[in-house]
Amino acid sequence: MNTIEVGVLGGTGMVGQHFIRFLQGHPWFKLTWLGASDRSAGKKLKDATQWRLDGEMPKSAAEIVVSECKPQNAPKLVFSAMDASVATEIELAFAKAGHLVVSNSRNHRMEADVPLMVPEVNPGHLALVRAQQRLRGWSGMIVTNPNCSTVTLTLALAPLKQFGIQKVMAATMQAVSGAGYPGVASMDILANVVPYIGSEEEKMESETQKILGSLDGARIEPLPATVSAHCNRVAVVDGHMVTASVALSSKPTLAEVQAAMESFQSVPQQRNLPSAPPKPVIYMREADRPQPRRDANRENGMAVFVGRLRKCPVLDLKFVACGHNTIRGAAGAAVLNAELMASEGYLD
Amino acid sequence: MNTIEVGVLGGTGMVGQHFIRFLQGHPWFKLTWLGASDRSAGKKLKDATQWRLDGEMPKSAAEIVVSECKPQNAPKLVFSAMDASVATEIELAFAKAGHLVVSNSRNHRMEADVPLMVPEVNPGHLALVRAQQRLRGWSGMIVTNPNCSTVTLTLALAPLKQFGIQKVMAATMQAVSGAGYPGVASMDILANVVPYIGSEEEKMESETQKILGSLDGARIEPLPATVSAHCNRVAVVDGHMVTASVALSSKPTLAEVQAAMESFQSVPQQRNLPSAPPKPVIYMREADRPQPRRDANRENGMAVFVGRLRKCPVLDLKFVACGHNTIRGAAGAAVLNAELMASEGYLD
Amino acid sequence: MNTIEVGVLGGTGMVGQHFIRFLQGHPWFKLTWLGASDRSAGKKLKDATQWRLDGEMPKSAAEIVVSECKPQNAPKLVFSAMDASVATEIELAFAKAGHLVVSNSRNHRMEADVPLMVPEVNPGHLALVRAQQRLRGWSGMIVTNPNCSTVTLTLALAPLKQFGIQKVMAATMQAVSGAGYPGVASMDILANVVPYIGSEEEKMESETQKILGSLDGARIEPLPATVSAHCNRVAVVDGHMVTASVALSSKPTLAEVQAAMESFQSVPQQRNLPSAPPKPVIYMREADRPQPRRDANRENGMAVFVGRLRKCPVLDLKFVACGHNTIRGAAGAAVLNAELMASEGYLD
Amino acid sequence: MNTIEVGVLGGTGMVGQHFIRFLQGHPWFKLTWLGASDRSAGKKLKDATQWRLDGEMPKSAAEIVVSECKPQNAPKLVFSAMDASVATEIELAFAKAGHLVVSNSRNHRMEADVPLMVPEVNPGHLALVRAQQRLRGWSGMIVTNPNCSTVTLTLALAPLKQFGIQKVMAATMQAVSGAGYPGVASMDILANVVPYIGSEEEKMESETQKILGSLDGARIEPLPATVSAHCNRVAVVDGHMVTASVALSSKPTLAEVQAAMESFQSVPQQRNLPSAPPKPVIYMREADRPQPRRDANRENGMAVFVGRLRKCPVLDLKFVACGHNTIRGAAGAAVLNAELMASEGYLD
Repeated sequence: MNTIEVGVLGGTGMVGQHFIRFLQGHPWFKLTWLGASDRSAGKKLKDATQWRLDGEMPKSAAEIVVSECKPQNAPKLVFSAMDASVATEIELAFAKAGHLVVSNSRNHRMEADVPLMVPEVNPGHLALVRAQQRLRGWSGMIVTNPNCSTVTLTLALAPLKQFGIQKVMAATMQAVSGAGYPGVASMDILANVVPYIGSEEEKMESETQKILGSLDGARIEPLPATVSAHCNRVAVVDGHMVTASVALSSKPTLAEVQAAMESFQSVPQQRNLPSAPPKPVIYMREADRPQPRRDANRENGMAVFVGRLRKCPVLDLKFVACGHNTIRGAAGAAVLNAELMASEGYLD
Repeated sequence: MNTIEVGVLGGTGMVGQHFIRFLQGHPWFKLTWLGASDRSAGKKLKDATQWRLDGEMPKSAAEIVVSECKPQNAPKLVFSAMDASVATEIELAFAKAGHLVVSNSRNHRMEADVPLMVPEVNPGHLALVRAQQRLRGWSGMIVTNPNCSTVTLTLALAPLKQFGIQKVMAATMQAVSGAGYPGVASMDILANVVPYIGSEEEKMESETQKILGSLDGARIEPLPATVSAHCNRVAVVDGHMVTASVALSSKPTLAEVQAAMESFQSVPQQRNLPSAPPKPVIYMREADRPQPRRDANRENGMAVFVGRLRKCPVLDLKFVACGHNTIRGAAGAAVLNAELMASEGYLD
Repeated sequence: MNTIEVGVLGGTGMVGQHFIRFLQGHPWFKLTWLGASDRSAGKKLKDATQWRLDGEMPKSAAEIVVSECKPQNAPKLVFSAMDASVATEIELAFAKAGHLVVSNSRNHRMEADVPLMVPEVNPGHLALVRAQQRLRGWSGMIVTNPNCSTVTLTLALAPLKQFGIQKVMAATMQAVSGAGYPGVASMDILANVVPYIGSEEEKMESETQKILGSLDGARIEPLPATVSAHCNRVAVVDGHMVTASVALSSKPTLAEVQAAMESFQSVPQQRNLPSAPPKPVIYMREADRPQPRRDANRENGMAVFVGRLRKCPVLDLKFVACGHNTIRGAAGAAVLNAELMASEGYLD
Repeated sequence: MNTIEVGVLGGTGMVGQHFIRFLQGHPWFKLTWLGASDRSAGKKLKDATQWRLDGEMPKSAAEIVVSECKPQNAPKLVFSAMDASVATEIELAFAKAGHLVVSNSRNHRMEADVPLMVPEVNPGHLALVRAQQRLRGWSGMIVTNPNCSTVTLTLALAPLKQFGIQKVMAATMQAVSGAGYPGVASMDILANVVPYIGSEEEKMESETQKILGSLDGARIEPLPATVSAHCNRVAVVDGHMVTASVALSSKPTLAEVQAAMESFQSVPQQRNLPSAPPKPVIYMREADRPQPRRDANRENGMAVFVGRLRKCPVLDLKFVACGHNTIRGAAGAAVLNAELMASEGYLD
């Protein structure tokens, strides 16, 4: 495959920096373009922003001259790391102009003709872009990935879909990196828990239903399961934890459920997509795992770790899951979406 | 009321120190006796152990000469702060010898004739000690308080009992102080979450059913509700958080539930027991409260703070609760039990 | 003494909230006025800002209608909790208009005719306001307290002044509350150290020399000692730590220095000022103390805790000190300044 | 070079696990032997201990059957990760039996004929083992690396040696991983600082003088500089910070010192030793760096990061340094020592 040039909208922000880091050394995609606000446009990245992640700004990205967020000179494939407050219009402009916008922003996720993708969970939903292009008269398209806590939950639930998911009760303990930079004030979170993340619970509930739903022509039929989320912020740097209780219609044994998790693979694994983890769901048998600081980074941050599968006195079974929120839940999620798109010829 | 002399079994440990601190300046009880292991017996407290709580060891306690854990010279009323590994036999010996053992240990909690008390929730269960004395032929007695996370949950549920509690799903985020000293290793919890606390979930499930149950002659009929707990340790010093979803048979409105919480008072308030908070359940209207670091210490650590009451898509409603685990969940819980006992004449 | 009405400039910010809390129940001062930006003026405090400190906004303050930061209706005594970016002009306007401005801002601290006070360390410097009034033609005045880390250092050094302080090397580990709200981003400080606080080292070096200096007519002769500071931010909520090495001309023994610390008292103690701690410097003999979380809050946050006094191979001796940065280092510092002023008749 | 089999004494402990991890994929050394207490001997590593580091126990090590700590079947080269309480006799027994003991324990560090090595700082000191073998009549030898905070300090000081180091004042902020497992109790360190680490200051002062000293026949002449250390524990997982002020006899400019740091290389770099970082000292120009969470892990944890070089009002100049305490300060330090030994033919 020839190298594909890619751009990042919102390239100077915290999520943009995650894209820059994740794309380093990518075998298919080469980052050549960064779009940001007028304030940054015309400057080299190294002069436009400060590096907030570990280590130092990658040298190749540091020299890229930041562009305005306008479609003209951008590569065909652009990742959107834009803040939700400005993403809507800019993403639309790029899609209209023929770009493939692979977005991490929440703005278009719940629109009827926009695929909300977790490639291992609902690869077939990508076909919705055909309807999107037809309905909107676009040559480009918008494809989205879900909220960071939704990715972890839906990947852990994917192997259970065969058993008939009826009810899902989730409580999250989410890392501060999910809120960007400066994000959560240290005065709010040191030695503390904040039991509220604005509109996170609503997103987790509705996005889960859409992702686990079925493509029905030009729309997604949401999974007819009830989903309830309690979202909390904790003093963790990276890695979201989700405790979940689930009711399943076919009443499988715990052993059957664990086996389904351990053997789970999907289209990204079958196609050997470069960012796909060999096993998207890794079941841990230790009594006290997974843990965000010890597990989220493993497998390049692209797997979801599950443990403590046991019976639930209220629903059928319960477990805990952990995923890397800024990799599997953001930059890596979008890049894997783009890899899936490339594997289906959308980038040709 | 004359001052009542009290002792603490396990007075050199972390929970013992919480009792020592909580009893400072108590209007009814005066700490005069401390029992500990043979290794400490015969030493002044200040020479037997290091103070692990904030500030310094209270001067009056520092000079108490620690005794062996034998009934002879101990006051009639003794609080047990003993480690579960040794509590069973020693508590039995004291009760047999005529002492009123008010215990924070888990060992006897689930025995059929032992009251498991949260004075605002089940004050009537105290009468079970009459059966206990009769059955065991004791002049003394054992009265227990629940696990620290159970106290928070049951106090928040108490105002809902009138609506018919059918199902409870709880997820906890628990402070490290709940594990004593040295307790949780910093390598395990800094910037991390540990999704497991040994046998905590089982305790929370069964203790909740017992506390919310009804006294039926010489036994407690557990509440016929299913309870499921997910217990997690987080990097918080003091204060346990519980997110809860509840199904209620009478389907009250959210406003009715909130009103029930806000107006909730019980026997300890009616009798003005010295450690009883004016309002045992404090409903907070801020979107992001309660929080352990900002709220657990308020009201001398004896109230439970509840917030974010809202509809639950899976059960009926959900909310978050926070309580001080070593005060309302341990030392303060036991002292309030003893105050209830005193108010009913058990100490006369 | 009659109750004295007081106001707080910058009453809606984080430092302002510390003033509001610290003034609750003050025996001399009654908070009746709050000044803030135009955006807040005209609103009740509870509608103008969110409470950021532990617990809830004090009810009496919540109902105060916030004024513009203009002198007309403000009480004679106003505390300034203003951000440095706007404090200069407003404080000048109030002083010109006859107000006693007791400021926590850094803006006027190093001006030649402005007292920079730590009441136990340099009570005599207050007389400098006479020169200030004469030179500036004011009926009012500006009196300042130092930077939060400087207070801790200078209180620990005050008992050593008699031995001839020649050199001071200090390294700080400072709490996040010192940076206000939102202040330090959690992404920067969780499980981390930031070895830089803007202009803090310069302030600590020059303010220490001024505070330990001598009043010479209309000016302060700085202490002719060299002072070097290394300032670091750590993941602590409240309480600044300072490790210090000191060279002393009279070469006292460690025992003499410890005795000087333990017996240290000054004007605020002699006059029984309401916020003065009985012992401003508390020497702790435990090997691992003081510690910010366990000690800073003791003595109402108004004492400085010192420990680990020992020989220094490079200078003469070394020790560690800890003080509450937002109480003794900010709100409490200013209130104690005002109490000293009241005790000398400046408020009559 | 043929692969060299190596063993780890104390292989089940926390430091042992760091050795196991660091040796994964080493181009010269292959881990084939683990020695531990009688309790573990005879079990596979995976059955003898729980993995405490991130991720999971490396599969190849998991299957190694743990041996008793006796010399017979161990490889010639053994790393010692033993606890100081038991290391002395066992290390002696191995050296006597002809083994090359490369030890991370403190027990033999300060003995006159034992090299205390930081390969970039004092590679010539290795020759001291010839005297050691002669004096003790051994065919084996003991070579040691310093305390974790000393490594960071001495690497940062090495480029300054040419300017004549006269005085060093250091204050540390040390990660909890330095204390092993369970190590520091979370109750002691969450949102706190502990200003004391047992005997750490003495080690840092004397080890620094030895490492920076000169080999004089069969002994090391310590550097005739005074060194003073203030050692503190902070809530950081990995990475020790050291703030340092230094007096230098030749009074170089700051630019000269920075240039010396930036160009510093030594024997391990010249010989391309596998674990040697290309630049052992990395100078960072950002105002607020280095930081432990963002920098310690870079360069495989083997470089020391320095920043904020500036004039010191008390000594000549000051700066801050950061190094990975369990890699560059422990396992990686010992492995680099062994690589230096191999490059000089000691393993032939």
